[in-house]
Amino acid sequence: MQDTRTTDEQWMLRALVVATNGPEADANPRVGCVLVDADGALVAEGWHLGAGTPHAEAAALAAAGDRAKGATAYVTLEPCHHTGRTDPCSRALAAAGVSRVVYAVRDPNAAAAGGGAWLAEQGIGVESGLLETEARELNRTWLHRVRTGRPWVTWKLATTLDGRSAAADGTSQWITGEDARADVHDQRARCGAIVVGTGTALTDNPQLTARHRDGTLHDRQPLRVVVGQRDLPVDARVFDDSAETIHLRTRSPREVLAHLGEREIHHVWLEGGPTLAAAFMADGLVNEIVAYVAPVLLGRGRQSVSDLGITTISDALRLEPTDTRIIGHDIRITAILEEDH
Amino acid sequence: MQDTRTTDEQWMLRALVVATNGPEADANPRVGCVLVDADGALVAEGWHLGAGTPHAEAAALAAAGDRAKGATAYVTLEPCHHTGRTDPCSRALAAAGVSRVVYAVRDPNAAAAGGGAWLAEQGIGVESGLLETEARELNRTWLHRVRTGRPWVTWKLATTLDGRSAAADGTSQWITGEDARADVHDQRARCGAIVVGTGTALTDNPQLTARHRDGTLHDRQPLRVVVGQRDLPVDARVFDDSAETIHLRTRSPREVLAHLGEREIHHVWLEGGPTLAAAFMADGLVNEIVAYVAPVLLGRGRQSVSDLGITTISDALRLEPTDTRIIGHDIRITAILEEDH
Repeated sequence: MQDTRTTDEQWMLRALVVATNGPEADANPRVGCVLVDADGALVAEGWHLGAGTPHAEAAALAAAGDRAKGATAYVTLEPCHHTGRTDPCSRALAAAGVSRVVYAVRDPNAAAAGGGAWLAEQGIGVESGLLETEARELNRTWLHRVRTGRPWVTWKLATTLDGRSAAADGTSQWITGEDARADVHDQRARCGAIVVGTGTALTDNPQLTARHRDGTLHDRQPLRVVVGQRDLPVDARVFDDSAETIHLRTRSPREVLAHLGEREIHHVWLEGGPTLAAAFMADGLVNEIVAYVAPVLLGRGRQSVSDLGITTISDALRLEPTDTRIIGHDIRITAILEEDH
Repeated sequence: MQDTRTTDEQWMLRALVVATNGPEADANPRVGCVLVDADGALVAEGWHLGAGTPHAEAAALAAAGDRAKGATAYVTLEPCHHTGRTDPCSRALAAAGVSRVVYAVRDPNAAAAGGGAWLAEQGIGVESGLLETEARELNRTWLHRVRTGRPWVTWKLATTLDGRSAAADGTSQWITGEDARADVHDQRARCGAIVVGTGTALTDNPQLTARHRDGTLHDRQPLRVVVGQRDLPVDARVFDDSAETIHLRTRSPREVLAHLGEREIHHVWLEGGPTLAAAFMADGLVNEIVAYVAPVLLGRGRQSVSDLGITTISDALRLEPTDTRIIGHDIRITAILEEDH
């Protein structure tokens, strides 16, 4: 006989893997469900493809049919207990005759929570917390929005190894290479919104879309958000028809995030410019930095990070690195603000 | 029957691995030798432990005794053909009755080269170039010195993610963390010399030794080199008895490297300060940068890299990253100057 804990972990890991079939930038979290019969054989699996589509449990139950009876359900998020765009998963699992439910993370959404407790009341075996860390990581940005009401903010920074974004004469194309720029587009596609200031929109006239290397658009485009009081020309590229765009006439990062949080966006990709980024930093609203570091030395030139009002080392903003890798001829560093550990 | 090429590669790989038993900072290269009999069985292996000790081939032959007869010798560097502090390895291999010699890299040292050709003249099968790239990498700094007469220079840089080495008020302890500082000591121990300017020696009064975390010294200490015209106090810590120290009263990086090259030092660890490092950079004498990047933002403060006389992006010094990893709470980036690919 196999060790139950190990077996449970293996099935939960599979549920986590199938969950990644769901879209990252959706209003809903990514969830996976695996149904396993009493003999330890896989019955069916399902995952959530985004708001308006069946939940992971419903997808797995539909695939299982009568074979769900007596099965164990491994779900990465506590089964929902409210009637939203779909029926509650708690009731669906019970109705299908599932005998045991193992889930990783409790649903932090007050309206949807309670599924675990209700299932236990029906006499179904319920366990929680298995691979919770991994399951939290999978929906880190979504969980952040549910907890705080604000999207998780990733600040994208491009810099030389010595902290420059342009040479002394202002030239800067290209500090980072083609592979790094392609990676930026992949990262944009994983976010719900791209945010820039009016300064960047006016100076660089960027399209702010997520594009493949051949220039074609990713299937899903983040919302384009321009922040600031200045007017934008109607023929600015951000107003083309490749994605939705909003212009928020405010200087307050908190207002920007409140608005985007209401739109159920949970991951913002903050691209600049330096003034806007510094404002987000000053308000403590940056959760993560993704820095593309070109192994280039300039000695002087435009700074990649503006004055943050820091004068002594003990006040420095200290992040915790979570990943670093070579991308083409550049280095990508990912680091999160320590309070968000 | 096994594929000969694959088998040869496996034995050469083993020779490369045993070569790493040798000291990195020695005047001599690291070399490994593996002897394999006609049935494909390992007979003996040997490696070079540094100047004045037996060469890898001699060590392997001594371990093999009579069983070397008819064997194939896999050597990471062409067997030497000159009588130095040891007899030539070419003659020793022939005298032992080795029937075939496979080596990875030709000896670039004119005085020692010719071993391969001589062995072939004796009717011994000789092949070269197997895993040459890997073998060159193993002795990259030594090969550089033999080729150019100058040591390979690794510039150690410590910087925040935004290119600062101190806050606006001058405070800087500690930008990087304990693990990064321990790594610096490990890197120092792998080099033949640590080079700093008189400014750093006077301001920081560093000991410039390679120390373990408990403060004890590594067994082998690099030469401590202070460069510049200014006098140093006799009680400066670099003059303590933990290692040899020289003060080179010059401002010319080229003179410094010529002197160290004559001392058969092939790897210099350049620690600063910024003025000295900028002079090495300006003269094109930096081969590699090891940058300890603290995921810290300061916004302003002292720059980690001085003016390099670069005004436009096309003149930027562009390196090629070879490694990046998280070390404790910091990131280490290794990159080499492109001309040294």
